[in-house]
Amino acid sequence: MNADPSTPGRAREEGWGVASDAGPAHRSVAEVRPYSSSQPAPQVVLVGRAMATFRLALIQLQISSIKSDNVTRACSFIREAATQGAKIVSLPECFNSPYGTKYFPEYAEKIPGESTQKLSEVAKECSIYLIGGNFIPTGSIPEEDAGKLYNTCAVFGPDGTLLAKYRKIHLFDIDVPGKITFQESETLSPGDSFSTFDTPYCRVGLGICYDMRFAELAQIYAQRGCQLLVYPGAFNLTTGPAHWELLQRSRAVDNQVYVATASPARDDKASYVAWGHSTVVNPCVLSVSVRSFHLKTVWKGITLLSRSSTWPQPSPELLGGGPSQSWHRRSHRVFRHRPEEAG
Amino acid sequence: MNADPSTPGRAREEGWGVASDAGPAHRSVAEVRPYSSSQPAPQVVLVGRAMATFRLALIQLQISSIKSDNVTRACSFIREAATQGAKIVSLPECFNSPYGTKYFPEYAEKIPGESTQKLSEVAKECSIYLIGGNFIPTGSIPEEDAGKLYNTCAVFGPDGTLLAKYRKIHLFDIDVPGKITFQESETLSPGDSFSTFDTPYCRVGLGICYDMRFAELAQIYAQRGCQLLVYPGAFNLTTGPAHWELLQRSRAVDNQVYVATASPARDDKASYVAWGHSTVVNPCVLSVSVRSFHLKTVWKGITLLSRSSTWPQPSPELLGGGPSQSWHRRSHRVFRHRPEEAG
Repeated sequence: MNADPSTPGRAREEGWGVASDAGPAHRSVAEVRPYSSSQPAPQVVLVGRAMATFRLALIQLQISSIKSDNVTRACSFIREAATQGAKIVSLPECFNSPYGTKYFPEYAEKIPGESTQKLSEVAKECSIYLIGGNFIPTGSIPEEDAGKLYNTCAVFGPDGTLLAKYRKIHLFDIDVPGKITFQESETLSPGDSFSTFDTPYCRVGLGICYDMRFAELAQIYAQRGCQLLVYPGAFNLTTGPAHWELLQRSRAVDNQVYVATASPARDDKASYVAWGHSTVVNPCVLSVSVRSFHLKTVWKGITLLSRSSTWPQPSPELLGGGPSQSWHRRSHRVFRHRPEEAG
Repeated sequence: MNADPSTPGRAREEGWGVASDAGPAHRSVAEVRPYSSSQPAPQVVLVGRAMATFRLALIQLQISSIKSDNVTRACSFIREAATQGAKIVSLPECFNSPYGTKYFPEYAEKIPGESTQKLSEVAKECSIYLIGGNFIPTGSIPEEDAGKLYNTCAVFGPDGTLLAKYRKIHLFDIDVPGKITFQESETLSPGDSFSTFDTPYCRVGLGICYDMRFAELAQIYAQRGCQLLVYPGAFNLTTGPAHWELLQRSRAVDNQVYVATASPARDDKASYVAWGHSTVVNPCVLSVSVRSFHLKTVWKGITLLSRSSTWPQPSPELLGGGPSQSWHRRSHRVFRHRPEEAG
């Protein structure tokens, strides 16, 4: 079976690790724990082409109504994460603004603007501090552009430059009778582009919150070689318990990628109460890593993960494919096999 | 917002029910319970174009090594389900054979053959007994055709005719070191076709077990108008607790369809121990219906479900679409919007 491109043997030739190559990682899952400054944060192992190992921080920020305070505290936690060795940091959705259509116009900024300028500075500052390490904060803010408002995630590299910008494609327009009604489209416009960025560790795909409901976004990112998908998000007390974890686990197992979400901390006094529970899920979904607790101000989702090339595994006869199709693309081969069905 | 084709208002015009139309269904979820012959089985409500209501039975058969016994008992439970008003019945994967590559060649049959002949007869018999009701047994058996063996699901209509035949596309070739190694492809060949069939209640899409891991199969079926996906399956004690429920819930919420699985009963003495837990999931995943218990010989998964057209709900600006695109297709519109990305 090793002659087939979709098997572990072939995957190994292409530089993908297999479960047995990364045995200790499985055991280390048990070490996962909520962040404590007295403990060094464990690492994320992305067993991919580069067998990359890095630390990921998800900052579950308590959002106030004072924008400058939000930004200042976010930067403070980013610095703290950096001192713990974090290489990629995600802030939550709308980290500089309370979440709500009435707030978006007031808090919106152009990019670059005051909030993203601070992000750029702290990214650069910590990069130097990290001695050549890469430090990439993401998150989202209400963005103003040509008279339209977007829910936008900006990514800055270790030299402070804007690496990527992603505008939320699927706006959160929802009406669950008796539960929750919310119309993001009352004030926001949707994005129309995908956005990925490369790091020395892996390629990262970006989505925001409700985007996570739409499976194709994650599928497209996986097709483009992303190994980690990051969704800053703010599910609520209705959608959170119903779907937050399910969707992350689905995206991870279906596409064999790591999925991370960063939520605002839960604030029961806010007009929109975020679910919290920032999470990292590994491709096998065997362990959902740390989930945050109610009203935790900051949480860093850090885990040791491994990629198993043997589970799930495609049917070689059906899926065919050439050497360029590594095993983790298996979930797209039905399309390749029968392109007329892809519509 | 009702002017948009993807909104509940539009959905209602097209004949799709909304949550508020089906209020009692939500409440009835609490009535779901394991089957007992002393209780009438509650109904499945498919709130779709036809607002169809019907009863679904999943027969979690204890499989023995004697083929004729398996078939006889299956038919007995089918009759029992029919007397309880079941209109669609699914048998588990390989219901006439122990599950294992060494068994498949010995138990394989042509279609039609002895086992499917019995299914045809019992379908016809119960249809008459049901006084015009439709009665459609599915399941899977090892099938022999032109020297190749397939894992095949045969569907018979209320007049006993073969309505559809589905051959498992994604063979279960798995190697989780220290956990489970299984190579269905040692003896089986994969199918290469999709298979749906129409009932007066809804269109049904067929998959078998490991097929459930591959998101695109369910997406294609949803695109083709299926409202119910049935996967006879036999996950095991490794993959079952890890992924059985997750995958069903994922397929249901991502495609806004009902998903049903029928498993063999767990038999700890078998060489391959099935996970059991035959399940029905509704499109909102708010309630996973009855799950079976260890070593139950028969279980009928029956629930009252409703479809909510308002959750999840797409972004109208992004997704566009015409009247023919009903709301539940929202998860495919990223592709339609950017067809060049679909590959």
